[in-house]
Amino acid sequence: MTPITGATRLYGLLGDPIAQVRAPGLLNPVLAGRGSDAVLVPVHVPAADLRPVVAGLRQVANLHGLLVTVPHKAALLALADRATDRARLAGSVNALRREPDGTWSADTFDGDGFVRGLLAAGHDPRGRRVCLVGAGGAGSAIAVALLDAGVAGLHLADTDPDRLAALGGRLSAAYPGRVEAASRPRLADADLAVNATPLGLRPDDPPPFAVADLPAHAVVADIIMSPAETALLRAARERGLPAHPGEPMLAHQIDAYLDFFGL
Amino acid sequence: MTPITGATRLYGLLGDPIAQVRAPGLLNPVLAGRGSDAVLVPVHVPAADLRPVVAGLRQVANLHGLLVTVPHKAALLALADRATDRARLAGSVNALRREPDGTWSADTFDGDGFVRGLLAAGHDPRGRRVCLVGAGGAGSAIAVALLDAGVAGLHLADTDPDRLAALGGRLSAAYPGRVEAASRPRLADADLAVNATPLGLRPDDPPPFAVADLPAHAVVADIIMSPAETALLRAARERGLPAHPGEPMLAHQIDAYLDFFGL
Repeated sequence: MTPITGATRLYGLLGDPIAQVRAPGLLNPVLAGRGSDAVLVPVHVPAADLRPVVAGLRQVANLHGLLVTVPHKAALLALADRATDRARLAGSVNALRREPDGTWSADTFDGDGFVRGLLAAGHDPRGRRVCLVGAGGAGSAIAVALLDAGVAGLHLADTDPDRLAALGGRLSAAYPGRVEAASRPRLADADLAVNATPLGLRPDDPPPFAVADLPAHAVVADIIMSPAETALLRAARERGLPAHPGEPMLAHQIDAYLDFFGL
Repeated sequence: MTPITGATRLYGLLGDPIAQVRAPGLLNPVLAGRGSDAVLVPVHVPAADLRPVVAGLRQVANLHGLLVTVPHKAALLALADRATDRARLAGSVNALRREPDGTWSADTFDGDGFVRGLLAAGHDPRGRRVCLVGAGGAGSAIAVALLDAGVAGLHLADTDPDRLAALGGRLSAAYPGRVEAASRPRLADADLAVNATPLGLRPDDPPPFAVADLPAHAVVADIIMSPAETALLRAARERGLPAHPGEPMLAHQIDAYLDFFGL
């Protein structure tokens, strides 16, 4: 860790809960290694308190940026002054930076990090059929990145019909003919199945989808980082399917964060 | 430094300017040495933005306390839910902690730290006549602590007549017959003269008072920490008077902060 002085630049990671977040533990040693006088601290904010907290943080002159995790990724898009096309398409942001004029610009790196992690593990999604379960903050960003990476078809499943219809509508307009949305996952012809729901964080969670219903060649990916092997990934491994864990999605975002923040 | 994780407790130091503050550099290594999973970060807040920033920080669930420096010490007294008698008498706080019920309690340790630093340097103020220049956030807390430490008389000087009258009135009521307030310092019979103004932070500042007008046995103290030897302290040294620097006031508050925050 870099020693913190009065001149250290602040970055905050907003989430609820917060104790489990991994980004401070990963990013701060990288900042120290680069000699950046900057620190990322966890900021625990319940959803009901988000607006006054963000209003206050905007006035903190040495706070130069924010990372965002569950459940604030959609809400922060609305509170940013501008966002990239991919963030608006996803309806979700996970990073904001203060510009020199005091306004805040937002982007999402979840999808890019997820796809880079897949590629690094040898699972190129181009031309594949993907079943993505979970249309929340991370899931929506992953959907956009998978479509940008050239998947043949994206089947999007979520149990919240309003959320599913909103994201499905935006994606169908932007990527005609490649997107399908339904309340239940279509697994039978999926080359890659992704869990982007919180199911698996707790030991007694039901599985987000049935590994048994996938083809024998399918890759199973989970974005949950803790536990490192979820029940879903264990089921995939036991069936002999390639299992892709959550950690690479974050690890492959670190460089993108540093670029975005100019660190 | 303790590695920062999602579970690390946050403490903020509010001030404007902020780059020069010493408390994070002093306190964080102490926290690490004690194995406390807590970090103090600088929070740069201009006076005009204080209210929304504090309103936001109050809703940050893992922010457990604040330290306060120039120019916010009086304003934070008004924003706290309760304060100690000495803080209300001084009209100034420099530390706030979140209680289990979510309310904020405030205290000031500046005066206590200053007196402890004096005692450690062998300058017991008991029974002495003190001339204190500057009735701001730190000066007012030092005034209370000197009176509590048993000074025979306190001559308080400030160029702001409203501020001087308010503090002088409160102190005269609490310590009858021992307090005198005036726009100009009374130096001729002072055993100890203290600069609690910002004069001396910049090389071209005029002196806060004239060392030449003090008796030959007087002690000269400054609360400015940077530079370590102000022009005032240099003038005292050159005249052969004991010169007491600003650093001990902060160093002698560290244990008090740790106690107050339960760290």
